[in-house]
Amino acid sequence: MQICRFNENRLGVVRDNRVYDVSGVLDRLPVFRYPLPEHDPLIAALPELRPIIESMLAGARSVDLASVRLLPPVASPRKIVAAPVNYRKHIEEARSDAAIHHHQAILDIDRAGLFLKATSSLIGPSDPLMIRHADRRNDHEIELVAVIGKTVDRVTPEKALDCVAGYCVGLDMTVRGTEERSLRKSVDTFSVIGPWMVTADDIADPGQLVLELRVNGDLRQQASTADLLRDLPSLIALASSFYTLRPGDLLFTGTPEGVGAVKSDDSIAAWIEGIGTMQVAVH
Amino acid sequence: MQICRFNENRLGVVRDNRVYDVSGVLDRLPVFRYPLPEHDPLIAALPELRPIIESMLAGARSVDLASVRLLPPVASPRKIVAAPVNYRKHIEEARSDAAIHHHQAILDIDRAGLFLKATSSLIGPSDPLMIRHADRRNDHEIELVAVIGKTVDRVTPEKALDCVAGYCVGLDMTVRGTEERSLRKSVDTFSVIGPWMVTADDIADPGQLVLELRVNGDLRQQASTADLLRDLPSLIALASSFYTLRPGDLLFTGTPEGVGAVKSDDSIAAWIEGIGTMQVAVH
Repeated sequence: MQICRFNENRLGVVRDNRVYDVSGVLDRLPVFRYPLPEHDPLIAALPELRPIIESMLAGARSVDLASVRLLPPVASPRKIVAAPVNYRKHIEEARSDAAIHHHQAILDIDRAGLFLKATSSLIGPSDPLMIRHADRRNDHEIELVAVIGKTVDRVTPEKALDCVAGYCVGLDMTVRGTEERSLRKSVDTFSVIGPWMVTADDIADPGQLVLELRVNGDLRQQASTADLLRDLPSLIALASSFYTLRPGDLLFTGTPEGVGAVKSDDSIAAWIEGIGTMQVAVH
Repeated sequence: MQICRFNENRLGVVRDNRVYDVSGVLDRLPVFRYPLPEHDPLIAALPELRPIIESMLAGARSVDLASVRLLPPVASPRKIVAAPVNYRKHIEEARSDAAIHHHQAILDIDRAGLFLKATSSLIGPSDPLMIRHADRRNDHEIELVAVIGKTVDRVTPEKALDCVAGYCVGLDMTVRGTEERSLRKSVDTFSVIGPWMVTADDIADPGQLVLELRVNGDLRQQASTADLLRDLPSLIALASSFYTLRPGDLLFTGTPEGVGAVKSDDSIAAWIEGIGTMQVAVH
């Protein structure tokens, strides 16, 4: 099932280029008082809500997919975790290009670990990417994003995929420079997810998906998640060995080779097999 | 005013070692539906609630401070920002001790920038610090923490202190290793704030506060925020040049020299002038 958020916080299911409005199910989510929960309420409730969403589909109003504004399919993640240098050819390009490494050592992922992106950087594909450091290089990085569906602490790789609710296409936008990744990759609008979340049952193997990113129609990145140095189960196990993961937390799995600069008025198309294409405008 | 959270999500004002229960004011906070707000609801509403809290004090029940369980004074920050190597003598000790630098370059803060800590790592002083990587060195780092009170984007240093709601004592606990700080400092329980939040009007100059940290009674860290390389206004300006800050976001300002290991059964006392002492047990 392809679940999207659209227009004014509406919930939809995408089928055959139509968006079926199932927003009524959101009335079943709890009401919150201070303090706020530490998870995304929709993702946490999805196992119970999904049969209701399916039963609503036959009678749901639908609109043309091209007519809606797509929001990030996960509205309120509390944590965005990301993997650096997780494809071998991307490590090689990072180590050979001073405009990427800025004379800092590029460790492999086993030594670099994971980093965090600010939740304030999250947008959906219909929001524009805003360049605020035009004096620096701002790079596109396409990544498979896993949406965590359960609360997990110190999970093994063998059980890690059981905690995934679904998958999105992600852009881990990056300002190049000497600063730690958690700053340079947390600029407002620099974490894009979409175009929707494909539920985990629709992806037979997240380790066998082709990714492609084009800028203004030109192919820039093309790879398969089969080339990940640390695969998704291993990344989830690593993350949960440091901190508890909760429903709605996002895990960006790393970008393959071909990263490069974007500038104002560019148009990015990011496609992942089995998920779809996300079109993002750069302002 | 010293505002604390205690026991089962109660709100208190601390005076003369008594906690005055003003939890009734929490009923005035809005009720939230999905999607959740991107700020801490109490900190966002504090300017309007403060006169009400003050009017409640005369009739408020009070309990002995020593009898309560202190929670983190900010319940729901969406972002925890922190400054690395922001005292000169701490840079020197980090560069001279392989158990700290792990053969990674220690950049000065102007090149290292800021990092993020996971909000899932946040606890109050009455919760125990849980060591989960006992095979590595786990260090104490006392820091002045500023609580952001307003939504700010690209603020100048001159106007930066206007957006601070208050101050806490902070422990930026750290697992040593090669990984980026945003992973090593985000272990569950590794961000402690307390013992309460002192509102900004009670701190004449956050750049002139003495800090002291003791482990089992032994003095380990002692410095003044006057020694910060980048002062608080400059840190806020730097952070907001990358991302929007919102009410409840926390800013850890960096630790002075004297960092060192803690182990199970240690007891940490962290004191900052004008705020108070936070006692934290290590499990």
